[in-house]
Amino acid sequence: DFLHALDEVKPLFGVAEEELGKCIRGGILHFSSYIENILDEGRLYINQVRKPDSTPLLSVVLHGPPGSGKTALAAKMAMDSDFPFIKLLSPEDMVGFNEMQKIQQLDRTFRDAYKSPLSVIVIDNIELLVDWVPIGPRFSNSVLVALKVLLGKQPPKDRRLLIFATTTERSVLQQLDLYPRFDAEIAVPNVNSQQELGHILQQSGAFDDRAIHQTLGDIQEMTGSQEVGVGIKKILTGIETAKQDEDMAGRFARVMGQAIAARGYE
Amino acid sequence: DFLHALDEVKPLFGVAEEELGKCIRGGILHFSSYIENILDEGRLYINQVRKPDSTPLLSVVLHGPPGSGKTALAAKMAMDSDFPFIKLLSPEDMVGFNEMQKIQQLDRTFRDAYKSPLSVIVIDNIELLVDWVPIGPRFSNSVLVALKVLLGKQPPKDRRLLIFATTTERSVLQQLDLYPRFDAEIAVPNVNSQQELGHILQQSGAFDDRAIHQTLGDIQEMTGSQEVGVGIKKILTGIETAKQDEDMAGRFARVMGQAIAARGYE
Amino acid sequence: DFLHALDEVKPLFGVAEEELGKCIRGGILHFSSYIENILDEGRLYINQVRKPDSTPLLSVVLHGPPGSGKTALAAKMAMDSDFPFIKLLSPEDMVGFNEMQKIQQLDRTFRDAYKSPLSVIVIDNIELLVDWVPIGPRFSNSVLVALKVLLGKQPPKDRRLLIFATTTERSVLQQLDLYPRFDAEIAVPNVNSQQELGHILQQSGAFDDRAIHQTLGDIQEMTGSQEVGVGIKKILTGIETAKQDEDMAGRFARVMGQAIAARGYE
Amino acid sequence: DFLHALDEVKPLFGVAEEELGKCIRGGILHFSSYIENILDEGRLYINQVRKPDSTPLLSVVLHGPPGSGKTALAAKMAMDSDFPFIKLLSPEDMVGFNEMQKIQQLDRTFRDAYKSPLSVIVIDNIELLVDWVPIGPRFSNSVLVALKVLLGKQPPKDRRLLIFATTTERSVLQQLDLYPRFDAEIAVPNVNSQQELGHILQQSGAFDDRAIHQTLGDIQEMTGSQEVGVGIKKILTGIETAKQDEDMAGRFARVMGQAIAARGYE
Amino acid sequence: DFLHALDEVKPLFGVAEEELGKCIRGGILHFSSYIENILDEGRLYINQVRKPDSTPLLSVVLHGPPGSGKTALAAKMAMDSDFPFIKLLSPEDMVGFNEMQKIQQLDRTFRDAYKSPLSVIVIDNIELLVDWVPIGPRFSNSVLVALKVLLGKQPPKDRRLLIFATTTERSVLQQLDLYPRFDAEIAVPNVNSQQELGHILQQSGAFDDRAIHQTLGDIQEMTGSQEVGVGIKKILTGIETAKQDEDMAGRFARVMGQAIAARGYE
Amino acid sequence: DFLHALDEVKPLFGVAEEELGKCIRGGILHFSSYIENILDEGRLYINQVRKPDSTPLLSVVLHGPPGSGKTALAAKMAMDSDFPFIKLLSPEDMVGFNEMQKIQQLDRTFRDAYKSPLSVIVIDNIELLVDWVPIGPRFSNSVLVALKVLLGKQPPKDRRLLIFATTTERSVLQQLDLYPRFDAEIAVPNVNSQQELGHILQQSGAFDDRAIHQTLGDIQEMTGSQEVGVGIKKILTGIETAKQDEDMAGRFARVMGQAIAARGYE
Ligand SMILES: Nc1ncnc2c1ncn2[C@@H]1O[C@H](COP(=O)(O)OP(=O)(O)OP(=O)(O)O)[C@@H](O)[C@H]1O
Ligand SMILES: Nc1ncnc2c1ncn2[C@@H]1O[C@H](COP(=O)(O)OP(=O)(O)OP(=O)(O)O)[C@@H](O)[C@H]1O
Ligand SMILES: Nc1ncnc2c1ncn2[C@@H]1O[C@H](COP(=O)(O)OP(=O)(O)OP(=O)(O)O)[C@@H](O)[C@H]1O
Ligand SMILES: Nc1ncnc2c1ncn2[C@@H]1O[C@H](COP(=O)(O)OP(=O)(O)OP(=O)(O)O)[C@@H](O)[C@H]1O
Ligand SMILES: Nc1ncnc2c1ncn2[C@@H]1O[C@H](COP(=O)(O)OP(=O)(O)OP(=O)(O)O)[C@@H](O)[C@H]1O
Ligand SMILES: Nc1ncnc2c1ncn2[C@@H]1O[C@H](COP(=O)(O)OP(=O)(O)OP(=O)(O)O)[C@@H](O)[C@H]1O
Ligand SMILES: [Mg+2]
Ligand SMILES: [Mg+2]
Ligand SMILES: [Mg+2]
Ligand SMILES: [Mg+2]
Ligand SMILES: [Mg+2]
Ligand SMILES: [Mg+2]
Repeated sequence: DFLHALDEVKPLFGVAEEELGKCIRGGILHFSSYIENILDEGRLYINQVRKPDSTPLLSVVLHGPPGSGKTALAAKMAMDSDFPFIKLLSPEDMVGFNEMQKIQQLDRTFRDAYKSPLSVIVIDNIELLVDWVPIGPRFSNSVLVALKVLLGKQPPKDRRLLIFATTTERSVLQQLDLYPRFDAEIAVPNVNSQQELGHILQQSGAFDDRAIHQTLGDIQEMTGSQEVGVGIKKILTGIETAKQDEDMAGRFARVMGQAIAARGYE
Repeated sequence: DFLHALDEVKPLFGVAEEELGKCIRGGILHFSSYIENILDEGRLYINQVRKPDSTPLLSVVLHGPPGSGKTALAAKMAMDSDFPFIKLLSPEDMVGFNEMQKIQQLDRTFRDAYKSPLSVIVIDNIELLVDWVPIGPRFSNSVLVALKVLLGKQPPKDRRLLIFATTTERSVLQQLDLYPRFDAEIAVPNVNSQQELGHILQQSGAFDDRAIHQTLGDIQEMTGSQEVGVGIKKILTGIETAKQDEDMAGRFARVMGQAIAARGYE
Repeated sequence: DFLHALDEVKPLFGVAEEELGKCIRGGILHFSSYIENILDEGRLYINQVRKPDSTPLLSVVLHGPPGSGKTALAAKMAMDSDFPFIKLLSPEDMVGFNEMQKIQQLDRTFRDAYKSPLSVIVIDNIELLVDWVPIGPRFSNSVLVALKVLLGKQPPKDRRLLIFATTTERSVLQQLDLYPRFDAEIAVPNVNSQQELGHILQQSGAFDDRAIHQTLGDIQEMTGSQEVGVGIKKILTGIETAKQDEDMAGRFARVMGQAIAARGYE
Repeated sequence: DFLHALDEVKPLFGVAEEELGKCIRGGILHFSSYIENILDEGRLYINQVRKPDSTPLLSVVLHGPPGSGKTALAAKMAMDSDFPFIKLLSPEDMVGFNEMQKIQQLDRTFRDAYKSPLSVIVIDNIELLVDWVPIGPRFSNSVLVALKVLLGKQPPKDRRLLIFATTTERSVLQQLDLYPRFDAEIAVPNVNSQQELGHILQQSGAFDDRAIHQTLGDIQEMTGSQEVGVGIKKILTGIETAKQDEDMAGRFARVMGQAIAARGYE
Repeated sequence: DFLHALDEVKPLFGVAEEELGKCIRGGILHFSSYIENILDEGRLYINQVRKPDSTPLLSVVLHGPPGSGKTALAAKMAMDSDFPFIKLLSPEDMVGFNEMQKIQQLDRTFRDAYKSPLSVIVIDNIELLVDWVPIGPRFSNSVLVALKVLLGKQPPKDRRLLIFATTTERSVLQQLDLYPRFDAEIAVPNVNSQQELGHILQQSGAFDDRAIHQTLGDIQEMTGSQEVGVGIKKILTGIETAKQDEDMAGRFARVMGQAIAARGYE
Repeated sequence: DFLHALDEVKPLFGVAEEELGKCIRGGILHFSSYIENILDEGRLYINQVRKPDSTPLLSVVLHGPPGSGKTALAAKMAMDSDFPFIKLLSPEDMVGFNEMQKIQQLDRTFRDAYKSPLSVIVIDNIELLVDWVPIGPRFSNSVLVALKVLLGKQPPKDRRLLIFATTTERSVLQQLDLYPRFDAEIAVPNVNSQQELGHILQQSGAFDDRAIHQTLGDIQEMTGSQEVGVGIKKILTGIETAKQDEDMAGRFARVMGQAIAARGYE
């Protein structure tokens, strides 16, 4: 069953459209100018790798708080590259794998990528891939080392590879000594201001202007501050929860209040 | 024998009525208004997931002190959903499983759930599922990571999944870095006031008003306080113990006195 | 050989008279009123479980210092219950078992108990069962978790189970987070006063009144105190050692002096 | 090969004369009155177990610094008992055994002993048997727990067992929580005074009175003290080393000086 | 598959030109006089081993910050030796090997080397080879010990072996207690001054003098210092990134600014 | 392959001349009177064991800093004994052995030795044999315990065994609790004074008196001290390195300067 799973590597030069599409189900809302900047940055690295006389191996890490949209943005960039080989490496597809099986999966994906002239590999959720748990901390040493080695391994002649990785917070990267292995980094921010939050509520279509005004006011009152600091993912889910409540604006304010208060524990 | 146990997954679209019913053997006493609020909250999340255009994956954690009624309440909510797939995942059914077998059981249950358009999974006692022991602390890293991954894994198209999990105290959640993985949380309280305790004694039918008055008085004298802070489960068992004693009220007071004193050690 | 050992579960509804009898070889001396109180308490819990409309699962832990008589008292209570299924689960019968084999033995015993309408399981020496060693501390996580799970697992319909467990000192229980899993606790005391010690010497038949007087005097002088604080087990062995010596009273005093002095190291 | 070794258990009711004899190759020198006291104590415990109406299980630990003569004294006592079953359990016969094999060896020896009406088991060097290393400290948990369990396990009806164990320093016993498991303890001292050392030199026959006088003087001068504090074993070897040197007295003094100085590191 | 990989040891007396060539893809830029000194040093050690009457075993470690050019320089020296046996031992070729397989690979390579009269082995990235992770720290004890042993093992008669090893920072060497095992060390520096950086930009051919002047100025302004302290590898990649940007000089300055700022985290 | 290696034990009563000879390739230079003293000491112990009425088991440890000549001196002593069984046990011959295989190799060698009337075993590099790494520290518990047991195990009747062991620094011995297991110790010193260094340069034949004078002066100036404190092994290699340089005296001074400076890190 697991052995079988190891065989499910996508056909060479096929593109993992569907897998990646699933990651962007909530779309990409342009709630701040940062979002466009991030996508621009992605295009730059894609061009760098595409050029035959330039860098044959480039690795970029997207880091940011839980639910800030790292996976969605990495998936978007990868899909926009139009490279013939695109592959998403995610812990979700490795539930029940032991360390050796994970490493083999990693190794196999990189070998497959080396066969295409131009490849993108998205390594999602590095900290879960290496079984990172902050208590201790604990993590899978061998998967981590395999990752480090693969991040630095030159592709064969005439092969070019771009790696996007995602992870929560740069501090984990640094503790794992992965930080200097990446050629570049992209910080993915939370939704931080009431203004950004307002844009999202507007684009959600569920709130009219009055309701937006009211709920933002409630939140500000509840938290005593204009700062938000919550990931886009939790906000989009919160909107759906609020829709179930008769007092939609009030419920949304309460959900956000809780999320903002909980930040200290993350 | 264990392999066999792994096959005991309930028939698809069948509902685990009996298993869940066993968890509510003591009924749901409405000893405080909190109880109804909690059940309301549960209904809200069920509705959110039920709607075809809303959140396809929602996870809610019930946390509270030992014996406060977490499992009973989660079971009640799940049964009330009327979703075609309902499954209780409990450490009780995994005694003697190794880490890999637990992960396979988890994985298999989620895969089964993905086959139903609407599913509820109740994951009981997360901290025992991951072999959590506060000394150290120790726990099964690999089961924890599998849990984290499954909590965030989007179901396939047109499949919708609601997860209720139970655990003692939020602090464990936070230490395990599970807290931010849940979309929502419900706090399940102890029986905290003498008034609440009185309601329970009344509903138990074993004590007449005079006996209630006397035993509450004794407890207050013994502990020098009006605070109770004991789980409903221990109280219901204590009532049964007291029934064996000739001096029922006195025995109940002593049992409660011990339980209240022991809180410091939990 | 080990697999074979796993099969040695007693025939269903048979009672482990002999095994339990071995634990009470030294009889139960009533050297203090506490002893009768403890046995009363035991009867109360037996009655609670026996009643068809009452608690179907009850767990009671006997804790006390080494050699204080925990196992003997638990065995006595279990034998006095006259329940059709009685089983002693002891580390002595699991020497050389690995963790998985211990868990299977536990699991199997509980499954067997669930087949009888009324059952008592005595789990002797919890801290050795879980390989507890205070350095570190170390212990078998998986056996501990299995124990926790089984202590809370409801028997099937119309089955009723009483669990007596023994362990040294409540602090171990608390460290292992087992304390709140038990419905009730019974503290088993050392022989603490000279008066109690005197009763025992008298009942042993080896000392006449003059010798008792002399040896108690010697002990008091040696230790400079009236406190004893030694388990009944060591005292009974000490009496036998003293019998070998010509100066019986003197030897007994020396043995007790050493035992009292050694308390600091336990 | 190892499996074979496990079969080398001595024929039942045969006595391990040769093995035990090897431990007393250097004889038992009576360099102090303590030695006779120790042997007396041993006889007392042997008598206690021998009596049919007395203690069926008795465990005695001999503890003392490295090379103080623990093994020789335990072997002597066991041989003097004339019990039909005598067995030496030593780490020397378990080199290359894994934990499970050691436990099986222990278990098998105890089972064999239970077949004889009267048995002595000598467990040599407990701390090596449990792979004790003070760094950490580390040790084999499972062998330790097996030992604890076996030390407390009552023999079957009409079977009587005496256990002598040896170990370095009581502190190790206490750390391993083995101390309260023993019914009695015997402290084996180093050679502590110059007078005791003098007796040994005399009995060795290698030194005449003048040489003894000279070498004791030299040692005292070198160390600036009358205290010796070295085990009999190292002293007997030192005498042999000195015999190779032309300046026998001087060499012996130097060897002793080094040994005395090294005490701080043990 | 892995077993197969173990067989891929190069044919005896063949030279691993291609593997080594891949390490010097970016050439060797002479951006400072240190570079020539390092290569001189390498030649000296090659000559020492080449002489039949001199040292039959010599080990030299190249240490320096990430990306400073260690691997490229070691590869260059090895290729310039013209020894009949040259082999690169790299973690990149051991992804998915377990400890035992790594040790066997090491052992086999050394055995092969002993068959040639003159051999060079390049051991790349020692800290990854031993699975070094600074948290803890953790590493593979057995691979480390194997490495230590092999570094000190004399070749057979008439066989001569030179070992180049690379590693980040001497502190790791010291922690691993590898430092004293090497006969000599070579420190590989970062690009440290603006002048050195200027040389590299010139040799890259991408910047004209004006652009160099501008970008160096920007960097100095951004960081408020003339110090650079970045590895040649990151600089060469940064030049390629800058080429994709319309504002090449500005982008390069920003990339360098980030790299210089990040030094604190490495 | 490994199993095969285990069979390579030398034919009984054959002597491992060649293996031992390899350890003394650099000869034994008498650069200080300590060297002769050490060899004398060795002869004394050989005589002690040789005598039929004396100590049947004697263990001597040579300890000293890295490269101080421990292995060469132990090999020399063993070869000079002319005992019929001589065996070198070295980690070099156990690369890739697991713990159990190492223990079996140890055990087998001791068993073979017990077959000869007179035997010498040289156990080289104890700290590597037990996989000692100072971080932690970590080491192989089971090999260490096997070693301890074998060091104290009496040979059978009419068999006599001398053990020489080598290790770096006494502190490791003490941490491993091996120190008191040895009957005697020999400290092997570094080359400590300029005078000793001068003797070595003279005996090397590479330097004339003027060059010696110059290089010693340079070293003294460089380090600002007359102390040297470097092992003979590094000095002999340094001489060979210097020979490759045109400025032989200057290069030697620099090599020694580095070695002296590095002492702090060892
Ligand atoms: N501007 C945006 N950036 C990213 N995601 C967005 C944006 N706008 C909407 N989304 C939606 O928000 C969700 C972001 O979730 P995503 O899983 O990518 O977050 P994440 O940071 O990877 O979370 P986690 O920390 O759990 O891995 C996606 O459903 C995505 O479609
Ligand atoms: N209002 C209530 N809420 C929850 N349980 C109740 C309530 N009233 C009565 N009960 C009964 O109390 C018991 C609660 O036990 P339950 O096992 O659910 O607690 P728990 O918090 O899950 O305990 P644990 O911490 O051991 O997992 C059940 O038997 C339930 O039927
Ligand atoms: N009042 C008493 N209570 C308990 N045991 C008694 C009493 N009087 C005599 N005994 C005898 O004392 C002994 C008590 O030993 P027991 O093994 O039960 O102690 P324990 O506390 O379980 O010891 P351990 O800590 O080693 O498990 C038994 O032999 C029992 O027959
Ligand atoms: N009075 C004595 N007591 C004990 N041993 C003696 C005595 N006189 C001589 N000996 C001899 O001294 C030696 C003591 O060594 P033994 O191995 O018994 O010491 P040990 O304390 O067990 O050492 P270790 O700590 O290494 O286990 C034996 O050879 C014994 O014959
Ligand atoms: N003077 C130089 N020294 C070393 N490398 C140079 C030099 N000039 C250009 N290069 C190029 O710079 C790159 C150096 O990368 P290399 O992998 O050798 O660094 P490293 O220190 O081994 O990195 P890592 O720490 O990741 O192992 C190579 O591509 C090499 O061709
Ligand atoms: N007086 C001497 N004592 C020891 N070795 C000498 C002496 N004179 C020359 N040598 C040579 O010096 C070298 C010493 O190396 P050896 O391997 O014995 O040192 P070591 O202390 O065992 O090193 P390590 O700490 O690496 O095990 C040998 O080649 C030996 O022939
Ligand atoms: Mg993500
Ligand atoms: Mg529960
Ligand atoms: Mg007991
Ligand atoms: Mg001994
Ligand atoms: Mg490199
Ligand atoms: Mg050596």
